[in-house]
Amino acid sequence: MNILVINAGSSSLKFSIFEMVGHKVLAEGIIERIGQEGSTCKYKKYGQEEIKESVKGSDYKNALAETVRFLLHKKHGVIRSKNEIQAIGHRVVHGGEFISKPVLIDQDIKRIIKNCFELAPLHNPPNFMGIVACEEMFPGIKQVGVFDTAFHQSIPKHAFLYGLPIELYENEGIRRYGFHGTSHRFIAGKCAELLSESKNGVNIISVHLGNGCSVTAVKNGKSIDTSMGFTPLEGLVMGTRCGDIDPAIVFHLMEHKGYSRDEIDRLLNKKSGLLGLAEIGTSDMRDILNAVKDGNKKAEAALDVFCYRIKKYIGAYTAVIGEVGALVFTAGIGENVPVVREKVCSGLEPLGYELDVSKNEKNEMVVSTDKSVSKIMVIPTHEDLKIAQDTLYVLQESGFISR
Amino acid sequence: MNILVINAGSSSLKFSIFEMVGHKVLAEGIIERIGQEGSTCKYKKYGQEEIKESVKGSDYKNALAETVRFLLHKKHGVIRSKNEIQAIGHRVVHGGEFISKPVLIDQDIKRIIKNCFELAPLHNPPNFMGIVACEEMFPGIKQVGVFDTAFHQSIPKHAFLYGLPIELYENEGIRRYGFHGTSHRFIAGKCAELLSESKNGVNIISVHLGNGCSVTAVKNGKSIDTSMGFTPLEGLVMGTRCGDIDPAIVFHLMEHKGYSRDEIDRLLNKKSGLLGLAEIGTSDMRDILNAVKDGNKKAEAALDVFCYRIKKYIGAYTAVIGEVGALVFTAGIGENVPVVREKVCSGLEPLGYELDVSKNEKNEMVVSTDKSVSKIMVIPTHEDLKIAQDTLYVLQESGFISR
Repeated sequence: MNILVINAGSSSLKFSIFEMVGHKVLAEGIIERIGQEGSTCKYKKYGQEEIKESVKGSDYKNALAETVRFLLHKKHGVIRSKNEIQAIGHRVVHGGEFISKPVLIDQDIKRIIKNCFELAPLHNPPNFMGIVACEEMFPGIKQVGVFDTAFHQSIPKHAFLYGLPIELYENEGIRRYGFHGTSHRFIAGKCAELLSESKNGVNIISVHLGNGCSVTAVKNGKSIDTSMGFTPLEGLVMGTRCGDIDPAIVFHLMEHKGYSRDEIDRLLNKKSGLLGLAEIGTSDMRDILNAVKDGNKKAEAALDVFCYRIKKYIGAYTAVIGEVGALVFTAGIGENVPVVREKVCSGLEPLGYELDVSKNEKNEMVVSTDKSVSKIMVIPTHEDLKIAQDTLYVLQESGFISR
Repeated sequence: MNILVINAGSSSLKFSIFEMVGHKVLAEGIIERIGQEGSTCKYKKYGQEEIKESVKGSDYKNALAETVRFLLHKKHGVIRSKNEIQAIGHRVVHGGEFISKPVLIDQDIKRIIKNCFELAPLHNPPNFMGIVACEEMFPGIKQVGVFDTAFHQSIPKHAFLYGLPIELYENEGIRRYGFHGTSHRFIAGKCAELLSESKNGVNIISVHLGNGCSVTAVKNGKSIDTSMGFTPLEGLVMGTRCGDIDPAIVFHLMEHKGYSRDEIDRLLNKKSGLLGLAEIGTSDMRDILNAVKDGNKKAEAALDVFCYRIKKYIGAYTAVIGEVGALVFTAGIGENVPVVREKVCSGLEPLGYELDVSKNEKNEMVVSTDKSVSKIMVIPTHEDLKIAQDTLYVLQESGFISR
């Protein structure tokens, strides 16, 4: 039982193939520069070295054909025929208020994805094209959509409404949607398992720190608030995104710097965050940390701002949840950078979070002291595996695959 | 010893006169519609009914002359000669990074106020004009500037920097400045007094809820973070201001609704907040509460969003401060609306805030239970009195007035 997972981005197609008895990845890769000159594919069969090749990538159909070619490759391949792929799971970014769980993709779901183009203009259109390409390449194979926004549909109204004229919500759909839902849901489930709690009983704060960063408050297994909002720009300071700012800064820059709308969009999404604060030409946390070690004051300030904002969200969500079972760090930075967790947790003892510095240094699973009221944990996130698991679950629930 | 306090706004001039031995207000008033047709003055001598009259108000000089006429009035006046005013204290909104305490106004300070015109285009120019009018009307009288931003100059870099390119801070001064500083400083001082702590030892969260709303984290008597930012738009949901939103909403509205920069500015500053959410034609909390009582669902949502945002900031600032001595509510809504305090504090018990519902109903000074870890208090703010006190203090420190 193999499931292919597809994440079609604005100029890339990520893929991975899972064997679902052992829940293990067989191979994964990414085709980049789709629709541009010089498309390439990075591909890695489990247990082998990554290979990189030039490929045809004029559109998603080409890219998908190349994907299949790699999966069937004599030397690097992991299947002998397309028929060994039993189902396909798609990462889809935006489901608006229509989608609150993984769903079998049919005409209605495709219409919903299209209806959300305006809400996620950079993501939903390629997600949609990836689905259409798969329909052509794998006729008759069931496809499941796993939406980034779905987990956050349980956020109550007082938390998803902005302080804007209510007609902007009613007529334009402007509200907090939240993203990274698949990761936060994976963490909530994994955490319940590790703490031997029921999925519906777990109260956690899930801190996802990758290139994009977000925090989610999970109460009784459900998302009740999250830091990303109408778009993934809001919330924490990220690699290149500014996170929370005074919205009046946007007008100020337009007026006093003469920036156009698109320039400001680009400034806040692509040139801000760690990249903009540290000014060392990269947003990579490893580079920032090296610069800090070398005494770079701007890099130090960038790191401090990054960590301070996380601390504030942890406080805010502790207030919202009440009794927190675990504070969980995940994704690239969350899993691998002890100093970030240490700076974030420093001073949080009165709130019930007490870090064990030596466990933290070793990236152990539980990094809090024994007397910490709430556990502090480090749990690797596996969004693609979660999408594969969701896909299997939906097909079982729909009766297309027996348990 | 009488001190006149002047708050010159964009089309109004508020004034009050204090007798500084008893620290009591003698009279106060406001001249409205300055520079427009139909200027009026509302004036109230302490212990008398408010009176309202048409006045000359073509500019701040006229308005100030009218102010003096009222103060000298045979029946309603409180002084017999201009000479009975020994000093003048001015509310000034923005002092940038130059001003961190009340200061004697001289040419340098006037230059600083002018240099901050760009940062506070609606407030600093009239503040400046009020000062110039006073110089002409009261030649030789010492004037003191008390700045809204000054108290927040102690906020550390990791809290005042946004996640934006650092050159926007270095070259354009874009950072968190914070406002309502005079009120938060008054509350911090008053709270130290009431808790019999030293001013430099008090850790509080000061929640100022008027038409504008802000929260300040005070540690060891100093502001270490505050919810308003580069402008007074950021932070809590307010009467007509949106507070925190995803900045990408600004671009989205421009693109999809065709709004201009000025229209969005107006939308977020004048048509949002309680006014925009409740849609009952007013931002007055009393009207919102009446609508809630009548079963109006939008008004209820407005109230819920308003209170929820405050709760999140209390959590965030508890994380930042560590051990909080008191959570203090102040200003119109903060002092007088038990249901807001109740909704805000509900669920905050694990963080050490336990409200005593019956004390809260009575707007008592201490509204927490005896076993609450942090006190919850209701303290009326007196910004004008604080400005008068600051004015006196500055003149004493400078040797112009003996103690």
